[in-house]
Amino acid sequence: MELTADHAELMQAFQQGQRTALARAISIVENRRPGFESFLHALHGRLGGAHRIGITGPPGAGKSTVSAGLTQLYRQRGERIGVIAVDPTSPYTGGALLGDRIRMNELALDEQVFIRSMASRGSLGGLAVTTKEVADVMDAFGFDRVLVETVGVGQSELDVTAAADSTVLILVPESGDSIQAMKAGLMEAADIFVINKADRTGADRIAREVQMTLHLRLGHTMRSVPAHHGVDLKRARRAAKQGAQQGDRADHRDNTGQHWEIPVLQTVAETGQGVDKLVEALDLHRDWLRNSGELSRRRRLRLAERVREAVERRLRERIWQEGPGQDLLEAALDRLEAGEETPYSVADQIVRGANGG
Amino acid sequence: MELTADHAELMQAFQQGQRTALARAISIVENRRPGFESFLHALHGRLGGAHRIGITGPPGAGKSTVSAGLTQLYRQRGERIGVIAVDPTSPYTGGALLGDRIRMNELALDEQVFIRSMASRGSLGGLAVTTKEVADVMDAFGFDRVLVETVGVGQSELDVTAAADSTVLILVPESGDSIQAMKAGLMEAADIFVINKADRTGADRIAREVQMTLHLRLGHTMRSVPAHHGVDLKRARRAAKQGAQQGDRADHRDNTGQHWEIPVLQTVAETGQGVDKLVEALDLHRDWLRNSGELSRRRRLRLAERVREAVERRLRERIWQEGPGQDLLEAALDRLEAGEETPYSVADQIVRGANGG
Repeated sequence: MELTADHAELMQAFQQGQRTALARAISIVENRRPGFESFLHALHGRLGGAHRIGITGPPGAGKSTVSAGLTQLYRQRGERIGVIAVDPTSPYTGGALLGDRIRMNELALDEQVFIRSMASRGSLGGLAVTTKEVADVMDAFGFDRVLVETVGVGQSELDVTAAADSTVLILVPESGDSIQAMKAGLMEAADIFVINKADRTGADRIAREVQMTLHLRLGHTMRSVPAHHGVDLKRARRAAKQGAQQGDRADHRDNTGQHWEIPVLQTVAETGQGVDKLVEALDLHRDWLRNSGELSRRRRLRLAERVREAVERRLRERIWQEGPGQDLLEAALDRLEAGEETPYSVADQIVRGANGG
Repeated sequence: MELTADHAELMQAFQQGQRTALARAISIVENRRPGFESFLHALHGRLGGAHRIGITGPPGAGKSTVSAGLTQLYRQRGERIGVIAVDPTSPYTGGALLGDRIRMNELALDEQVFIRSMASRGSLGGLAVTTKEVADVMDAFGFDRVLVETVGVGQSELDVTAAADSTVLILVPESGDSIQAMKAGLMEAADIFVINKADRTGADRIAREVQMTLHLRLGHTMRSVPAHHGVDLKRARRAAKQGAQQGDRADHRDNTGQHWEIPVLQTVAETGQGVDKLVEALDLHRDWLRNSGELSRRRRLRLAERVREAVERRLRERIWQEGPGQDLLEAALDRLEAGEETPYSVADQIVRGANGG
């Protein structure tokens, strides 16, 4: 998997930390330009330094504001931050809504912050796959944290959060109606809950509902939660410290008894209130991930998933772009519509055709 | 694509209209049991009779209640109704929340109504693909309407609605915050808008917002909307009638000037208020689909998509189940984690291995 001369030059600039090289590298990966896989291949050895934080939740929950707040606090610690904002997009027009990113725009003037808005190409899974690989590029560039901000509660957003080390689910007091619908999906992907806009009425109530739901559901899963849970950072802090004291061998011991207690925090991101607690919870979660062996487990799952995606991309390209698939499909459309063929008989022909070819 | 003896027997019972045969057929397709494609192949000639209606919107909007209301009115006309309720599900536990379906349970006692709750298997795209094929089974069984009820605003839900002839997007007065986020995706998939729970304050305001958004965005797409639009069923009725008068040749003429005006209706589905207008709007939309040639266009797109899915399913099975892909992947995991290999070099090996095999 050799780099082209162009890409080799780009890689040099990238390794020197040039922002324009980062922007170009992201475009290559995001737009699946020729050679993008060789580029990712060449970057692979530089991965693993960044803490990848997924920030998700229903529309209007304040994800951008929370991202901006986190970024500001991380910057005060001198960290370098990459932000990927995934906007909902239209399968019809291909256009994306960029939303209001006023705070983010201020941060964007900071040389140590890099913000990229992304739009799905409308292909099933396209959003999730590309986002993960753009996060790889940012990781390889040397950011300390890569924030991935996604809207929505759908399957592809779940896949984006599955690619994060730590997933923050943001709700608002008004999200009560949604909890019932969300708990089966997103709620189990969340490592940390945030009730944002907590100065509105109902914040305590929804926090309690979330805690009850966590208790009822997660008690039966791998992330089982002890009887007392919720906003108990002290306890989580203690657990993380214990893990840390056991040192590097932590990931070799039996972790059966050591679970992450999912905190349910309250913030008013607009004023910055509570965002420091979120920073703290994220630090604790990262410590826990490392010390419990969970980080390694999640990364292995991710690598396997990445291989699967790359294999299936090759297979698709071979049949639809290099092979005769598209021509065979178009030739069959009239017969399909007339009912003389079915999608399954046509698929057989196409797969056979690709084999013969 | 021969049916097994078992499936041939099942197909007979299915063709005789036995509900137990329908339930078994759906299970075969939903669970991808061996031979499910041959079964779908055998059903293909019976497709096309049902009006497929997608009902979507954010959690808590009242989709089930609207579905139930529609079903009741369709039953009063003597129609046979199939309902597919797609519940959000967990990628971790595989469990689905069935929600409260009290009204639906009453309807379920009606022999002419068949309700199926479905859960995604957690695989990317699994939800969308399976739902469409279950809708095929219901269509082939002879239902007049197949309602597909999906929660959420994600990509896979969009794919489900793309499989419907008519898509209804349900909002509530409280959805104001969400419109900004939704308009790029779901809003353009909608053929009809419903503001449900319209007895709450804010219903008129959100109806206006939707209309404004439709005007701003859709003015630039294939579904361009004239200056005066909105709750104008009379006008839509006139357009549909004009189409109908032009008879069967309607789909051969140039439709450039003939657009569907997206109605924005208000309902209180809890009491049934306004649901009759939705029935009327759906009838008009179906007439328009037929007369404008759009139905044929949408169905051709769907057939092509179905072929693509079937081809890619074959390719995936060949490499991961029949081929050596999974073994090669597992053998590479340690080297991947150690950074000695990258997902892209491993993918190359797997694709080469599959070719050689």
